Amino acid sequence: MKRSERLADMTKYLMERPHTLIALPFFAKRYGAAKSSISEDLAILKHTLANNQDGILETVAGAAGGVRYIPFLGKNHAEDYLSDLTSRIEDPSRILAGGFVYLSDILGNTQDLRRIGELVATRYAYDDIDAVMTVETKGIALAQAVARYLDVPFVTARKRSKVTEGATVSVNYISSSLARVSKMELPTRALKKGAKVLIVDDFMKGGGTLTGMEELVKEFEGDIAGICVLCEADFDKEKLVKNYLSLVKISKIDTAKKLILAEPGNFLNETDFDRF
Amino acid sequence: MKRSERLADMTKYLMERPHTLIALPFFAKRYGAAKSSISEDLAILKHTLANNQDGILETVAGAAGGVRYIPFLGKNHAEDYLSDLTSRIEDPSRILAGGFVYLSDILGNTQDLRRIGELVATRYAYDDIDAVMTVETKGIALAQAVARYLDVPFVTARKRSKVTEGATVSVNYISSSLARVSKMELPTRALKKGAKVLIVDDFMKGGGTLTGMEELVKEFEGDIAGICVLCEADFDKEKLVKNYLSLVKISKIDTAKKLILAEPGNFLNETDFDRF
Repeated sequence: MKRSERLADMTKYLMERPHTLIALPFFAKRYGAAKSSISEDLAILKHTLANNQDGILETVAGAAGGVRYIPFLGKNHAEDYLSDLTSRIEDPSRILAGGFVYLSDILGNTQDLRRIGELVATRYAYDDIDAVMTVETKGIALAQAVARYLDVPFVTARKRSKVTEGATVSVNYISSSLARVSKMELPTRALKKGAKVLIVDDFMKGGGTLTGMEELVKEFEGDIAGICVLCEADFDKEKLVKNYLSLVKISKIDTAKKLILAEPGNFLNETDFDRF
Repeated sequence: MKRSERLADMTKYLMERPHTLIALPFFAKRYGAAKSSISEDLAILKHTLANNQDGILETVAGAAGGVRYIPFLGKNHAEDYLSDLTSRIEDPSRILAGGFVYLSDILGNTQDLRRIGELVATRYAYDDIDAVMTVETKGIALAQAVARYLDVPFVTARKRSKVTEGATVSVNYISSSLARVSKMELPTRALKKGAKVLIVDDFMKGGGTLTGMEELVKEFEGDIAGICVLCEADFDKEKLVKNYLSLVKISKIDTAKKLILAEPGNFLNETDFDRF
């Protein structure tokens, strides 16, 4: 097999298995090639990814070593995408009664989800995440996109129990928009005890729902690796959670004037993009 | 740029944009290479994918021509994966009270979702799908996975309206398990009139929920390109929908004996895998 064929196949194989260590002998056998040739192939791929700033190829030396593809975007990609996204979010036809914003098209667009998933996975690439958690319904798309690029499972908390999930752990939390106590639950078998969990959600106003997920992680004796939302409504009251990241910050919604103002959130400044 | 570098980059670029026509001059400019060299590169990639039976590279001739990557799996991959999946589904610890089956781990596993998404996208690769539709909550992961490999949007019908979605179209349907009339709705802006829709869901017993989605597609004056479920419970009563595909068929659940029997569904025989 020629080098160019090996590189086509190797790129596909690694991209399909992000964050997974592949031993060099695996590729050597797959292509009937010497390990030294495989090493040269991998150097080419590593260089190509670094050049484009859209991925990191990590080589791990030693007997248990191998190679690992880390989805990772450079700051220029993050800035370009978030600038495009915020301008699309500023479309006044998104304004719904009650100061809500229609985002279902973005959360159902696989190219947006790819970009958003890659960005969030960039921020948490080296944080040893065990699982991504969200709450039904609209956060699911986001959780799945992020989990895909971190290659970890994602779990969905529910506000209503379902008979198709078995035993659950449930917590109470203050749903800030309604200022009343709500309930949220997760199947007992969904999360291992002590898991390191990344919490994601589509939209944050007061942050009440996020505190519910924090409670759930505590019930499973887990660690919270971070909280990341697609959009935060900045004009809303004080937030109930600290240390969260947002990709987009909506600073104003004026229903009467049909105006919505958005800008990139704190995600850009809170992420170390210099890993290439 | 060397051929091997071009192939690494090209493979990544095309894999990230399935079903999207990329003009040859785009690659020629990106790599500063002659169109004839790009054509040779693409021939190598096409051959590599065909050899592995895990993707099709389609070249479109003429002025508006270019190249398109179609996620597509060979029958051997489908058989291997479905055999592995059915044996995992036969794990008796999945049995829940009431004859339900715990599948949330599979629906939260990104490697399973990749395989399932690629398989369903293989079946409908040449059917000009405009959108994938599902109903909350557990079908969402499946819809997103399939939509990703068809590169179309996915939309989620809801059983309860939300203020964050604006105007909706709602339909009534008979929820077969409860034999009562239920309601399901979709935002009016979620789907274009006349769209060709692929309906997917995680689990099918009587098929009542699927009839609700059929009704919704009709309300949007759309065409139903197909119905595909991850699991069907074959022992259940007569189905309310015809012409559906299932990846896995659960033929028996015996709660007392802790027994669950599964086999590949009709998907395998109803799919034309011979396109390489």
